[in-house]
Amino acid sequence: MSAPTAARAGDEDRLARAALSRVVEPGDHRVLRLVRELGAVTVRDALLAQRGQAPAADVAARLAEVDPHAELDRAARTGLRFVVPGDQEWPSGLDDLARPEPLQHRGDVPLGLWVRGPLRLDALHSAVAVVGARSATTYGTRVAGDLAAAVGRAGLPVLSGAAFGIDDAAHRGALGAGGTTVAVLACGADRVYPEAHRSLVEHLAATAAVVSETPPGGAPTRVRFLSRNRLIAALGRGTVVVEAAVRSGALNTANWTERLHRPLGAVPGPVTSAASQGAHQLVRSGAAAVVTSGQEVLELVGRAGEALVDEPRAPARPRDRISARQRVVLDAVPVGRGVGSDAVARACGFGLVETGAELQRLRALGLVDGDAGWRLTDLARRDRPEGGEP
Amino acid sequence: MSAPTAARAGDEDRLARAALSRVVEPGDHRVLRLVRELGAVTVRDALLAQRGQAPAADVAARLAEVDPHAELDRAARTGLRFVVPGDQEWPSGLDDLARPEPLQHRGDVPLGLWVRGPLRLDALHSAVAVVGARSATTYGTRVAGDLAAAVGRAGLPVLSGAAFGIDDAAHRGALGAGGTTVAVLACGADRVYPEAHRSLVEHLAATAAVVSETPPGGAPTRVRFLSRNRLIAALGRGTVVVEAAVRSGALNTANWTERLHRPLGAVPGPVTSAASQGAHQLVRSGAAAVVTSGQEVLELVGRAGEALVDEPRAPARPRDRISARQRVVLDAVPVGRGVGSDAVARACGFGLVETGAELQRLRALGLVDGDAGWRLTDLARRDRPEGGEP
Repeated sequence: MSAPTAARAGDEDRLARAALSRVVEPGDHRVLRLVRELGAVTVRDALLAQRGQAPAADVAARLAEVDPHAELDRAARTGLRFVVPGDQEWPSGLDDLARPEPLQHRGDVPLGLWVRGPLRLDALHSAVAVVGARSATTYGTRVAGDLAAAVGRAGLPVLSGAAFGIDDAAHRGALGAGGTTVAVLACGADRVYPEAHRSLVEHLAATAAVVSETPPGGAPTRVRFLSRNRLIAALGRGTVVVEAAVRSGALNTANWTERLHRPLGAVPGPVTSAASQGAHQLVRSGAAAVVTSGQEVLELVGRAGEALVDEPRAPARPRDRISARQRVVLDAVPVGRGVGSDAVARACGFGLVETGAELQRLRALGLVDGDAGWRLTDLARRDRPEGGEP
Repeated sequence: MSAPTAARAGDEDRLARAALSRVVEPGDHRVLRLVRELGAVTVRDALLAQRGQAPAADVAARLAEVDPHAELDRAARTGLRFVVPGDQEWPSGLDDLARPEPLQHRGDVPLGLWVRGPLRLDALHSAVAVVGARSATTYGTRVAGDLAAAVGRAGLPVLSGAAFGIDDAAHRGALGAGGTTVAVLACGADRVYPEAHRSLVEHLAATAAVVSETPPGGAPTRVRFLSRNRLIAALGRGTVVVEAAVRSGALNTANWTERLHRPLGAVPGPVTSAASQGAHQLVRSGAAAVVTSGQEVLELVGRAGEALVDEPRAPARPRDRISARQRVVLDAVPVGRGVGSDAVARACGFGLVETGAELQRLRALGLVDGDAGWRLTDLARRDRPEGGEP
């Protein structure tokens, strides 16, 4: 055991957490709860004291073999740091993981996070998680990229995994907008899965951060993905699900977001697309709000009064510029066959003289045609409201 | 004035309503309210008494010229009937229009409905209105047709307008499924607008019903479309908006549906499609529930316990058929590089012997490969949950 360099003097808690990180699976809520309640040093020592005794014999034996100084040294040499509770950059959102019940046997506050990259993790308190299906559609990847770009342009970091599909599109969208984007991995933060995303993950490690609860070298397993999902939900300010099939890891992340009482949004899509079924279920169940634009995502995760959305409005139309009386007359003019002024007067309820005068003004505006009885012009017809009107 | 044939003896109320229908615009809530509170005969007589006196002089003069017997005779000769409150087939849902405040100066219970077709209007109490944009997308028309077909197959009538786009698709979808479908028009029930839908409207008149508040011969005007929309909302059991731009007549129908406290559904679509913006707004505002399938539409309008939806589930997977302990072991096996039994044992938390035995069983099931360390097979990888997991 060489002199500790990564661990500072008195950093017994960090060393205990690093050692436990080697023998405790990510998201093992039983051990994590003990660590949270008793402290890492106490739990480590208690485990070590059980060497040779069932049922903890195996864990204790492995724990005895771990040299946490060497672990931290080796991590530091490969550009990794181990961020633990109490560190200045500790992302305090993770502490909220102490509250919810376990989900699929995973839960609680991690021992620490293995991090590669220059970004301080406490910057993630304003991050937005953008998650979804690996087998995304071109629609989904386009929307994920657009939403992540809007988040990036607003100066908020994006959080996602490193999978194909939505994760990939979210990182690239944020990067394209000059934003900060962070990958939370199920494998060790020194590894890349899938291999096809090596250059993406290396870029995130060089410019922002790549984060994992799994110690360096660790392989991606299903339990580690399930554990990882709770971190994505807990690190940021809220989560947006872009596409998710019915049985989807993104729904697991959504579930954690809901359990943490963080804002959860879901992007609708074609009802004919299986990739959008999960998102629609989240909305139907009341778990998620519908989000359809970057502005709406910012509104979703914004603090009160921040980023309030202007609901989309149609462009101004000629009929917006005429008087209320003129509109009443205009609305009484038929689309097809022309009719006499008397018929229009009857339909609008004004007198014949007044109706005639307004019809002349509407003709001057190009909205009605009086050549063969009064009827709407093409301009007025184009101007008509959508959806059922003539 | 010839002998009344369409009006039966003592049918003074029907005659008064027919006469008023000629001089009162559809949805004129001031007059309709008086009729509802004082009776049609009283209102007609009061108006007639004001002949020559402003401001009702014009209406009174026109009313004096109307021969309601002749109106009803002429209607009957062209296959039209005038259905009024108190008639056996009067669709009682319309009476609910007495409650909401006017919207865009339109409202209240109509004087009566001019109807062409064999369907009794009281059959519409179980109808579902399917409405949306004229300028619908192929996506929207496909979904409208599918939903209307599901409604038709369930034995419920479909209600819509007669416009291009969603209205058209809804009728054709219902007809294709052998369903009953009814058009509510803004022009007279003897007319067709747009002309391109003549054969569709004639088919509905021959097989079900074409309905209008506007008297025979009346032209389609904007106020009549706005008045018509409240009837679509009030006639049926609920309304589904398939596609609607931000400024859309379908949103007016949706608004009436909400004001009548009837179920309102909206079909999501691509957020990149302007045609779906209105539907998404309805969901975001809390006015409408998301509906994504015919079953969900039936659930929306169903009485409690009717047509409960089975949420879509993914097909069963091999991992559904293994034991819980085997799943824990399987979930600890990495995707990429193979690892030793000891690594899997550590990750899953079981002893080495037990882990080894479960790995052999999983190998026999074709889920893990032990040739170069333990790793998931293609079968297990295909079987993995969507969205973030390996």
